[in-house]
Amino acid sequence: MRPKPNSTPDDLAFGINPCAMALETGYAKSMLYLRETRNERVIELVEQARARGLHAEPVDAYRLDELTANGVHQGVLVRLRDIQPVDLRAVTREAGKSSLILLLDRVTDPQNLGAVLRTAVAAGVDAVVLPLRRGALLTPGVHRASSGISFIAPVAAPQNLAMAIKTLKEANYWVVAADAAEGAQPATAFDWPGRTALVMGSEGEGVSHLLLQESDFRVALPMDPRVESLNVGVATGALAYLWRRQWPAPQAAGGG
Amino acid sequence: MRPKPNSTPDDLAFGINPCAMALETGYAKSMLYLRETRNERVIELVEQARARGLHAEPVDAYRLDELTANGVHQGVLVRLRDIQPVDLRAVTREAGKSSLILLLDRVTDPQNLGAVLRTAVAAGVDAVVLPLRRGALLTPGVHRASSGISFIAPVAAPQNLAMAIKTLKEANYWVVAADAAEGAQPATAFDWPGRTALVMGSEGEGVSHLLLQESDFRVALPMDPRVESLNVGVATGALAYLWRRQWPAPQAAGGG
Repeated sequence: MRPKPNSTPDDLAFGINPCAMALETGYAKSMLYLRETRNERVIELVEQARARGLHAEPVDAYRLDELTANGVHQGVLVRLRDIQPVDLRAVTREAGKSSLILLLDRVTDPQNLGAVLRTAVAAGVDAVVLPLRRGALLTPGVHRASSGISFIAPVAAPQNLAMAIKTLKEANYWVVAADAAEGAQPATAFDWPGRTALVMGSEGEGVSHLLLQESDFRVALPMDPRVESLNVGVATGALAYLWRRQWPAPQAAGGG
Repeated sequence: MRPKPNSTPDDLAFGINPCAMALETGYAKSMLYLRETRNERVIELVEQARARGLHAEPVDAYRLDELTANGVHQGVLVRLRDIQPVDLRAVTREAGKSSLILLLDRVTDPQNLGAVLRTAVAAGVDAVVLPLRRGALLTPGVHRASSGISFIAPVAAPQNLAMAIKTLKEANYWVVAADAAEGAQPATAFDWPGRTALVMGSEGEGVSHLLLQESDFRVALPMDPRVESLNVGVATGALAYLWRRQWPAPQAAGGG
């Protein structure tokens, strides 16, 4: 499922939901679609693209297969403008006394990153902080795995996470690391700070030593010891909603 | 990723983690492994299988590819004994005043089912109730997606979920359906009953009308309206840990 390294250009998205979101958010520059498509949603997307003045070109299947490295393109693909990261300092200035910001340390698998972005937007985090240039991480596989939520996720991309933590501490965020090691507090009994910067690591490696040292608290989801770890998307969802329970959104309506 | 229907026998598991769990739990009957493997963990599994008196046969790659429908077998595969479901009534008798039981309505995608089983075992649910015969649902794809946690998950398989709900109500469980529709309570503000039977639907379809009618409560995770739904594994994790926050396990130690 993962696109092979260097086999797919990074400035495109494919599949119906990702392309729809790219169009809606204005990130789509142009479209390629399967010449013989009968998929009504694809036909609709082509019409929408043209209504917005974008070039939409019919192509043969092999072209889509090739450009997506045989991804599940469903007959549609868009080329993207550069995705604009959010400014972390500006986010913290606009945030209220309750604000959740997510920092992702070494979460690079496109499936996981896509799932985390979708969960983060659903739970209402104010920013998702990724190290490195944003463009290098928000790949076609991430757009696909997030169903295009990657285009609306408030992603910040500082030089490195240690710098982001410094910024967040200066803005009165408490840094909470998800950590499986001995000594972490049970996340279910944790008294969550209103302004929380939650650091998640990759499933195999966890949060790096340096960032653990910079953290104010270490929490872990209580787990059956026979399960070595939870998927990072699942763990992010559980932790974000435990935070949200303590700090409900202004209009905390039940959602889909 | 999903095995093609009827292309893979249901009585096998493949990949290192699933095979290790099948061996550990006694479900493995025999093993096939890649003749030229140099993977130390596979070699170790072969030794373990033989130490347990099981037949472990070296085969060529095409044989493993064929049996797993080109799944990610990592050079090892086991044939399985019939997986034994747990008895739901017995589970409810042994459970204390706090007990979480999960009912899965139309969650059939192997990736999702595998993720839900892993999350359910991690969060310490007392049973996962699946409709239909267990054997038909715990496919090789589920073993793989759950990293073999499917072999230790306490799965109950009643004739149908309505019957299971009747059993659970008689045992003083409150039935809580995860439901995205208007009128559901925010799950983050919900006062969770100690004995909760949590009904999860599939991501697209939700919980069926019949089961919603049988439910005592309907809850929803508060969500940004731009995200239509959460992955069922993520939603299960968030809801199970919200329940767990209110009803901690006896020794609620932080885990991985």
